[in-house]
Amino acid sequence: MTESPSGIEQQPGGVAFADPGYRAAVVDLLGVIAYGEISAFERLAEDAKLAPSLEDKVALAVMASAEVGNVVRLRERLEQLGADPFAAMQPFRAAVDAFHEHTAPSDWLEGLVKAYVGDGLARDFYREIAAFLDVETRDLILAALDSTAHSTFVVERVRQAIERDHRVGGRLALWGRRLMGEALSQAQRVAADRDALSSLLAGGVDRPGMDLAALGRMFNRLTERHAQRMADLGLAH
Amino acid sequence: MTESPSGIEQQPGGVAFADPGYRAAVVDLLGVIAYGEISAFERLAEDAKLAPSLEDKVALAVMASAEVGNVVRLRERLEQLGADPFAAMQPFRAAVDAFHEHTAPSDWLEGLVKAYVGDGLARDFYREIAAFLDVETRDLILAALDSTAHSTFVVERVRQAIERDHRVGGRLALWGRRLMGEALSQAQRVAADRDALSSLLAGGVDRPGMDLAALGRMFNRLTERHAQRMADLGLAH
Repeated sequence: MTESPSGIEQQPGGVAFADPGYRAAVVDLLGVIAYGEISAFERLAEDAKLAPSLEDKVALAVMASAEVGNVVRLRERLEQLGADPFAAMQPFRAAVDAFHEHTAPSDWLEGLVKAYVGDGLARDFYREIAAFLDVETRDLILAALDSTAHSTFVVERVRQAIERDHRVGGRLALWGRRLMGEALSQAQRVAADRDALSSLLAGGVDRPGMDLAALGRMFNRLTERHAQRMADLGLAH
Repeated sequence: MTESPSGIEQQPGGVAFADPGYRAAVVDLLGVIAYGEISAFERLAEDAKLAPSLEDKVALAVMASAEVGNVVRLRERLEQLGADPFAAMQPFRAAVDAFHEHTAPSDWLEGLVKAYVGDGLARDFYREIAAFLDVETRDLILAALDSTAHSTFVVERVRQAIERDHRVGGRLALWGRRLMGEALSQAQRVAADRDALSSLLAGGVDRPGMDLAALGRMFNRLTERHAQRMADLGLAH
């Protein structure tokens, strides 16, 4: 018995990974998270150029490099599973790149909100999926997604900006809604393309999954947490 | 007694830091290294866009984020010394930015050579200066400058490229000379501007320093190590 709700065993060589569908799903999942993080690094590094001060620039650089540390750990895990880490990331480039192309921040504040809201959304979503995984993979993913240390900086900066000029709040609230819309649209694209990954959520003959009602509840949870993050930033959802 | 050749004591509150000239020099030194590293992060992140593969992109991102880890440690040390870390970096922005503007890589390989040669040169130079510091500051600087893990990747990639096309070697050899020239020219600018820093090398009433002959020998050592690095890359000096 393990802590996993699906009762999947812990070892890469164990029951869970003996199922090629499960292994393919985990490789997909680690691949999409890793590519998401390397892209986040690139975007944060790009946004750091917009920083109004050297202190802000360093803060964003620290956030960017935390993403890279995660990529390294995910790469190692993919290698342990006998997968080529870069081949595992490849199928997700189009969707992740499209997300970033459609949500290029036009200024420093939009970049901060994107980092906070986008990271949070990704974290919540992968955390939901992680509940269906073997303990070792789940722990790796939860550790990779932990970036609470940086939140304070973003919340402070956005709230200060809104205090200085209230119109900023309206603009950034719209921006947050656009980020959510784009994220959902690219997530759907990935789900449609990657059978192994979506069957992880749907479950299988010997593995419990989510029915439509459970999927609906998950989306409700994601939406509620997104609204909470917007509120943290001082923005109306 | 300490291991330092200058016999300077270890504690920030000790004899060495009681001398305002020494403290100012250390703040300058940590400031210039920190700004150099945050700039290196920015440039490496920019160069990562030119990466021919996802694997190369991740390798450069890992190099970039190592620089940020160093910035964080240098910032902490500056705070311990009661200095504003960002004010300490400020005086060096013009020289470091000018170096990068005059040495913007035109392609992926120039970026790799710049990372390797530029980092190596900075490391050698700061290591020479570190010999004149209290043990604690010296250890911090030596740790911050250790990045041997990344060298293998650059050397492999540059050598592979030269094997494929020998003309590449001639072009990159010229590029290496240009990097050295720009680095020396900006270092001179810093030395002329920052009295505290240059008096660290020159010594003081109660502190040994380098005479002109010793300075000459130091430049010889720097030049020799630069030539060695060029040879490691398969480039004629």
